[in-house]
Amino acid sequence: MKRLMLFLLTPALVPAVAVAQTTVQLSVQAPPAHPDAQATDPVAMGWMVGAPPPPERLIQRDDMSFMKFPQIRWSFSHWREFLPTAEISRGDGPVSLLPQTPRDDLDDVTFAPLGSDTPMTWAQSLSANYTDGIMVMHRGAIVYERYLGALKPQGQHIAHSVTKSFVGTAAAMLIAEGRLDRDAKVARYIPELADGAFADATVGQVLDMTTGLAYSEVYTDPDSDAFAFILAGGTMPQPPGYDGPKTTFDYLKTLKKAGEHGKDFAYKSVNTEVVGWLVSRVSGQPLAQVLSERFWAPMGMERDAYIQVDSAGVGFAAGGLNLQLRDLGRFCEMMRNNGTFNGRQIVPSAVVRDIAGGGDQTAFASAGYTTLPGWSYHNQWWISHNDHGAYMARGVHGQACYVDPKAEMIIVRFASYPQAGNALLDPTSLPAYQAIAEHLIATDLQD
Amino acid sequence: MKRLMLFLLTPALVPAVAVAQTTVQLSVQAPPAHPDAQATDPVAMGWMVGAPPPPERLIQRDDMSFMKFPQIRWSFSHWREFLPTAEISRGDGPVSLLPQTPRDDLDDVTFAPLGSDTPMTWAQSLSANYTDGIMVMHRGAIVYERYLGALKPQGQHIAHSVTKSFVGTAAAMLIAEGRLDRDAKVARYIPELADGAFADATVGQVLDMTTGLAYSEVYTDPDSDAFAFILAGGTMPQPPGYDGPKTTFDYLKTLKKAGEHGKDFAYKSVNTEVVGWLVSRVSGQPLAQVLSERFWAPMGMERDAYIQVDSAGVGFAAGGLNLQLRDLGRFCEMMRNNGTFNGRQIVPSAVVRDIAGGGDQTAFASAGYTTLPGWSYHNQWWISHNDHGAYMARGVHGQACYVDPKAEMIIVRFASYPQAGNALLDPTSLPAYQAIAEHLIATDLQD
Repeated sequence: MKRLMLFLLTPALVPAVAVAQTTVQLSVQAPPAHPDAQATDPVAMGWMVGAPPPPERLIQRDDMSFMKFPQIRWSFSHWREFLPTAEISRGDGPVSLLPQTPRDDLDDVTFAPLGSDTPMTWAQSLSANYTDGIMVMHRGAIVYERYLGALKPQGQHIAHSVTKSFVGTAAAMLIAEGRLDRDAKVARYIPELADGAFADATVGQVLDMTTGLAYSEVYTDPDSDAFAFILAGGTMPQPPGYDGPKTTFDYLKTLKKAGEHGKDFAYKSVNTEVVGWLVSRVSGQPLAQVLSERFWAPMGMERDAYIQVDSAGVGFAAGGLNLQLRDLGRFCEMMRNNGTFNGRQIVPSAVVRDIAGGGDQTAFASAGYTTLPGWSYHNQWWISHNDHGAYMARGVHGQACYVDPKAEMIIVRFASYPQAGNALLDPTSLPAYQAIAEHLIATDLQD
Repeated sequence: MKRLMLFLLTPALVPAVAVAQTTVQLSVQAPPAHPDAQATDPVAMGWMVGAPPPPERLIQRDDMSFMKFPQIRWSFSHWREFLPTAEISRGDGPVSLLPQTPRDDLDDVTFAPLGSDTPMTWAQSLSANYTDGIMVMHRGAIVYERYLGALKPQGQHIAHSVTKSFVGTAAAMLIAEGRLDRDAKVARYIPELADGAFADATVGQVLDMTTGLAYSEVYTDPDSDAFAFILAGGTMPQPPGYDGPKTTFDYLKTLKKAGEHGKDFAYKSVNTEVVGWLVSRVSGQPLAQVLSERFWAPMGMERDAYIQVDSAGVGFAAGGLNLQLRDLGRFCEMMRNNGTFNGRQIVPSAVVRDIAGGGDQTAFASAGYTTLPGWSYHNQWWISHNDHGAYMARGVHGQACYVDPKAEMIIVRFASYPQAGNALLDPTSLPAYQAIAEHLIATDLQD
């Protein structure tokens, strides 16, 4: 397997699925190894322009260039052009309109990046984070919305691990409905996993990622199991001579337990694939249909979404969702409103309260996320436990849905940061979100 | 190459792109070699149901089962789940509403299938043709609309070679705009083809498929060049050891001339790929964008469509369009209305008149289509030259857009007939369309 990995791994390779952040040191002062957002503007670079595009503008899956920087500045907004995908239908109901009360005072809001004494403005943070699209909603109205790079208002962008929070929320709803038992062993629902790592893990443990797995997710290491995972699922093309598992589910069966379940938090995307399997098994529906019926149709989403599928047609639960930025905003806003949206109770309020309440902070601390002190992970969401009660969905390269209940604010962002780990973006993101929240509260008081 | 073809070719294989019909004999009396439409109902068969689907319900591209019958009864409505695709955006304008005046008298309309003395009803013809969806419009209103099989009203179905007529119409518009010269040699626009079969073919000759090519399109023959064509374009997976062209355009460069250009009609899909190349080259846009800007957005189409792309992101002009049935109806109705639709002139009326007027019937006759006596082929459309002035877009396995100007009628159909050639469906389709047309005219007169 190692030779196959080396075949695929190149220095510039920045795989687009979740990456462990535990080894990343906080060092925002270091000059970036990559050209900046303006120099890598995907429209100016002319990616995929031409009939056919000339070699220097061509992006392909076969050579993995669709997962390299700066090509990702284009490919993240055109994921379906590289891989098979299943539609997540919004149905044919009316679109839920989002009120617009645009504000021009946010660009100048200033914050101090984590670990830095040099202030930065909100406007500056957008290019620092290679933002493709960002939207701020306050008290239910859009107050700020920008599109940069290759993303357009009607376009769809890959959400990467933000996908996990959609799938985790669907699982939590099934638990609330009594169709899935959080304390039951995974193998009760998925006998196919009775012999492997997940056999004696509970539903709650895979949801909170406290399983003990012999599985490493470090993309700078060619021996990392993460490569075998995304090879099986088809994000990476299976090279000549490949004889490993051909689907994600077949890969899950090969995993072995290491250590204890239910102890430490360890961010491993394979847990989410088990969650996706549980959701599909219990609901009797493919993931795309679950997301359509539970979120896209009842919420009056603006656009159909889609999810990457493997060779068995199974949706990539850990990172395959592609959706419109405004629809991510609707989802985030629904969570802020205790599960109500479009005049309906989309998610039971108890489920939202449980997610927002967070998980085990001690279990989380053991993972060593320097940019997330005091946080926890619960039902595939990241909870800050700060005094605003903020919580997040997070995906590599800067995808985010940030809920700030106290400020009655949500922020959603799509980005194509050169490297995968969000620890690199957090310094210019988390304090920026907090500054916008405080600014909105302060200006409210002035009203 | 032959060994690769044998690797992929199986007796049940019915590739889903255009097939030459010249060798098909008219014999509707022969019992079908395949189970009927009811026995192969894709919903009842449970294709792709399960997490994961069990082997007997699994459809995949890797093993080419997505192109076999009866799996095509499901896969034709889920094409994007097997291959990379590009969106054809409808934009965000309002949907052009189609008036509905449903009629319940069409199911009993009776006709005599070609070569048969046994009458058949319209309703019977639907299952005889393995219809997935069919819609009849009369004087601008939907009078009949049915969905069978795996297709839903909001769903998208592969159009196969009906795609050609969209691309051909776009090319004819560019000619009318003076941006493309019908009499110019292809190599003037595409120097990359200066050394091959198309070098001295004119734009008009590729549009009317009167090129002389050393290229056979016979899917029952493992030596047929058609396999090399769809391997290069990626519909078939490129097997281990494959060292042929990796994109459609690279394949086109390998073709050699045989015989004369401008003489006989010979239905060869590679011509359409040249048309697609011309359209993209001259417009400076990928095919998906051309179709969006020329048809989907201004016509107020109901749903986004999509087109299969190869590994260079190039749309499959000869057969890769997937769209909603009603949107195919809109396109067909636009043609019937001399290019006007949604209050706009979508296609210049002169372009529509030229297409409806047809091409060289003598050149067409040499191809020996027994079910299409007196027809011609022009700008990627099939023209009947009957006394109703009917003309068609046609795709393998029963895809159709039928325009009957005299009856002020259009019929659009998606189907998943077991075999590719439309000569097998024509006997229960063409006289059925004619009978509906005459019935509509007759009942008009009674009003």
